[in-house]
Amino acid sequence: MTKKAGKSLREKFALKNNLLKEGLAELLGTFILIALGCGSVAQTVLSRGALGGALMISVGFAMSVTLAVYVAGGVSGGHINPAVSFAMCLTGKMKWVKFPVYVFAQCFGAFLGAAMVFGINYDALMFHTHGVFTVTGPNATAHIFATYPQEYLSLTTGFVDQVVSTAFLILGIFAIFDTDNLGVPKGLEPIAIGLLIILLTSSMALNSGCAMNPARDLAPRVFTYLAGWGAEVFTAGSHWWWVPVVGPMVGAAVGTATYMLFIELHHAPVPLCQKNAPDTHHEYELTHLEERK
Amino acid sequence: MTKKAGKSLREKFALKNNLLKEGLAELLGTFILIALGCGSVAQTVLSRGALGGALMISVGFAMSVTLAVYVAGGVSGGHINPAVSFAMCLTGKMKWVKFPVYVFAQCFGAFLGAAMVFGINYDALMFHTHGVFTVTGPNATAHIFATYPQEYLSLTTGFVDQVVSTAFLILGIFAIFDTDNLGVPKGLEPIAIGLLIILLTSSMALNSGCAMNPARDLAPRVFTYLAGWGAEVFTAGSHWWWVPVVGPMVGAAVGTATYMLFIELHHAPVPLCQKNAPDTHHEYELTHLEERK
Amino acid sequence: MTKKAGKSLREKFALKNNLLKEGLAELLGTFILIALGCGSVAQTVLSRGALGGALMISVGFAMSVTLAVYVAGGVSGGHINPAVSFAMCLTGKMKWVKFPVYVFAQCFGAFLGAAMVFGINYDALMFHTHGVFTVTGPNATAHIFATYPQEYLSLTTGFVDQVVSTAFLILGIFAIFDTDNLGVPKGLEPIAIGLLIILLTSSMALNSGCAMNPARDLAPRVFTYLAGWGAEVFTAGSHWWWVPVVGPMVGAAVGTATYMLFIELHHAPVPLCQKNAPDTHHEYELTHLEERK
Amino acid sequence: MTKKAGKSLREKFALKNNLLKEGLAELLGTFILIALGCGSVAQTVLSRGALGGALMISVGFAMSVTLAVYVAGGVSGGHINPAVSFAMCLTGKMKWVKFPVYVFAQCFGAFLGAAMVFGINYDALMFHTHGVFTVTGPNATAHIFATYPQEYLSLTTGFVDQVVSTAFLILGIFAIFDTDNLGVPKGLEPIAIGLLIILLTSSMALNSGCAMNPARDLAPRVFTYLAGWGAEVFTAGSHWWWVPVVGPMVGAAVGTATYMLFIELHHAPVPLCQKNAPDTHHEYELTHLEERK
Repeated sequence: MTKKAGKSLREKFALKNNLLKEGLAELLGTFILIALGCGSVAQTVLSRGALGGALMISVGFAMSVTLAVYVAGGVSGGHINPAVSFAMCLTGKMKWVKFPVYVFAQCFGAFLGAAMVFGINYDALMFHTHGVFTVTGPNATAHIFATYPQEYLSLTTGFVDQVVSTAFLILGIFAIFDTDNLGVPKGLEPIAIGLLIILLTSSMALNSGCAMNPARDLAPRVFTYLAGWGAEVFTAGSHWWWVPVVGPMVGAAVGTATYMLFIELHHAPVPLCQKNAPDTHHEYELTHLEERK
Repeated sequence: MTKKAGKSLREKFALKNNLLKEGLAELLGTFILIALGCGSVAQTVLSRGALGGALMISVGFAMSVTLAVYVAGGVSGGHINPAVSFAMCLTGKMKWVKFPVYVFAQCFGAFLGAAMVFGINYDALMFHTHGVFTVTGPNATAHIFATYPQEYLSLTTGFVDQVVSTAFLILGIFAIFDTDNLGVPKGLEPIAIGLLIILLTSSMALNSGCAMNPARDLAPRVFTYLAGWGAEVFTAGSHWWWVPVVGPMVGAAVGTATYMLFIELHHAPVPLCQKNAPDTHHEYELTHLEERK
Repeated sequence: MTKKAGKSLREKFALKNNLLKEGLAELLGTFILIALGCGSVAQTVLSRGALGGALMISVGFAMSVTLAVYVAGGVSGGHINPAVSFAMCLTGKMKWVKFPVYVFAQCFGAFLGAAMVFGINYDALMFHTHGVFTVTGPNATAHIFATYPQEYLSLTTGFVDQVVSTAFLILGIFAIFDTDNLGVPKGLEPIAIGLLIILLTSSMALNSGCAMNPARDLAPRVFTYLAGWGAEVFTAGSHWWWVPVVGPMVGAAVGTATYMLFIELHHAPVPLCQKNAPDTHHEYELTHLEERK
Repeated sequence: MTKKAGKSLREKFALKNNLLKEGLAELLGTFILIALGCGSVAQTVLSRGALGGALMISVGFAMSVTLAVYVAGGVSGGHINPAVSFAMCLTGKMKWVKFPVYVFAQCFGAFLGAAMVFGINYDALMFHTHGVFTVTGPNATAHIFATYPQEYLSLTTGFVDQVVSTAFLILGIFAIFDTDNLGVPKGLEPIAIGLLIILLTSSMALNSGCAMNPARDLAPRVFTYLAGWGAEVFTAGSHWWWVPVVGPMVGAAVGTATYMLFIELHHAPVPLCQKNAPDTHHEYELTHLEERK
């Protein structure tokens, strides 16, 4: 009797539907990514560099990814990025039917994360801007939430920048989880991914801040549109907004193709005795978490 | 005979009482946290930024947590924070009867740590302040020991800031120790917690320095009250002092609830054969150290 | 039938020739090293220090090595440096016949990486230099790609600097992979190598930027020669260009000899029962990956 | 026959005497510590902060310790510090007869490391000082090699500073290697020790640079005395030189006692069945490497 009662709470709340469960995890993970990642941009921008700087944002954003993957990784894989989910679907590691659910959860989580950054830093924002939220100029604050290009950046270079940086991201993620390669010890992948983000934000953030993630960029941009920054968040930089949305998706395909052609296709074939379960070998890495559920 | 004599020292000092043993560990851990964490603030403030900066304090405080957890973790769990102990009690991972002992040890250790920072930096303090210890103004030194809000911060936003940052801390700790999630390899949890502190102090330190720990904030504040900074340490910032005491406790509850609702409740149920020992499964992570004793 | 068809793509592309496979991996690894490592220099130089600095370049270059070793390590060993390949040949861990293939792949990858840095940062380069690419002076940009000596540096000191820094690099790599020593846990070697690069670029970058890698320095230098910086890239610094090419090769020999004489020769001899396979014991560490293929 | 010949090189050089072997390892380890640790100070000082800063020195010195422990750890334990050797002797983890050999090797290695820093940075030193090597003043360079106190520091506070910082160092090392506590996974201890050094140099470097190691401070000081800085290296700071020599030895005892009293004495006693080999249990952690030899 007591045991049954003790179990009832768990039974009541536990979602039977795996997809909903995974959506919740992606939502929470992407919320963490934006609330703390963009939070580190806010800390640097609103302290005028006294409490942060380029390296601190790089480390802060990277560790927000690490935390998000530790929180969501065991449930949904911790993609927290439509480009990553796209790469997983492309390689058959995730079913396409899940893709829209993941993307919706990621965008919704990112929107809530932006709202959290806004709320936590509301007093500082009002103090520094006197309530005038601007997208460009010396007192601009919109780049706390979404990325904007340097004035000299052409759309073409900017698009290539987003494709290439995301391709490196995806390439790195495949290497980190590839147990036929060196591989990262189980349970340390989120830290290796964090180091990968430190690398990319140290090397490829000059042009436009290295978004590499449609949900990370678009959802907070929509939030700023609604919260008082106005339509300029979409028109600025020759309508820049679509570049960090489309570029990363193309980059995901490029990164996947590069890793497959240069590394994974050349791994030794699966031994004969395992041929009855073809593909298991190479699909294992990223789906083993799912199977445990 | 010789063996008996050789054992006598150990037998004499070894405390039979687990709770006293755990209290000693928490005291030493929190002492380390403040002596070295606030020490890194002292190094930056008293060198006028020549020997430190925002990132160095972030890393220094984080690594003081890492060291404290390595030192105390195997004995008491290494909470070194009443908010963490509160979350452990809330989830049944620690008995409520231990809670006051832990909190007392944490506050006492933090007080001693503040005294150590004061002693080690006494010459520098006297040189820079000429013996006039102030809480506000350009020559202020009280923020070496306890946190103070930005001038523009409202108590409401400040309280929410403490609730939210501590909720992220607790959420991260649950994820790090959740063996049903990705989990951090055994023996590396203190480093993962350190990275979590780097993240939070990079992202949420703008408003009031990201205390997230009643013992870390209140005990050194009491020390400064006694050591010559006077009653202003309590009155400054519209009597700010209670916010980093109460906020983190609320945040602990919020963080616990969030992790339970979004992640832990949806883990696959314990197999039937283990139902005779209900809850063991989910209580294991943070108590396995205790059981070894 | 279906299985055969499903396997065809893999079979078609999978290279039977191990050496070609390893060359592809070295090419991709060294491409990553330069595209992202020199990319971090570009970000700092072209943002005039706003988006980077000495520590960020140190961390960026180090993590580009870490990523490159994770990507190529399981296939080719992830040398991405002719000096490392040379040390492996010297100690019998790699066959000499592979050496020219590795070096060619490394140089080709580095050249492509330099082209990628040029392309990604083309708009920024044109904006800051107005199309005048210079090797020296306040607006110099050639040091984004290759290393140049301080004005006061003699060729002799510069050569010794390259020998010594590369010797430390090789010494560190031997220690990291020496399972008879402390050894780094499997799968974490790339991170330990990254930390080693952080160390060396923090300690030995004053004189000439700490190249320690002929491919990393010469191939991007050739690229800048072709891309508009002109012959000065070879004549600058009293024809400095050959120092980071020859110095590291000498350093590889010095580092190998030092580790052998001080540490490895004194390891306990292989037990009698293993004497039928002499040298296996000490060759294992760096070749075990190869054997898996 | 061939096997014998192939073995001859190894047999000729391999030292039968363990102590000599350990001395060589300590010499090489401490050489690395100074050559690269003090090298990072040189890079910052001689670039006038352009290629380094407080955090970079902190990270550089820490990673030089990490590398030194990876290189020497499997042979000699990687003490590279007489205070650490002292603590090992105090707790019976090393025989006293080895102590003078370790200390001599450490001092000799540190002296050679200082010579290496001098040689590598000779051109930069001459350029910046015009050959006038000074201990104090704006153009001082002696602090590249040894530590000097702040002008306001009393000898008493300085001595306490060295005792306390070294006590924390020793405490941390005991925690890192204590397998009855959380413990660091095998092979990662050098990285944990590196993080400990980052912590201590972030928190306790204000007064006098946080030497914590008699060999690290005295041997390079003797080198500067001989190399042209003159007797002021000993007379500066009210004859400061002996403080970072004696203080760390006292600190080693204090740190050892603290860890024993607060943590180790309270570990559960060794089970009866192991009582025939008393003390093995607690001596294991730091000597297991030695036993393998």
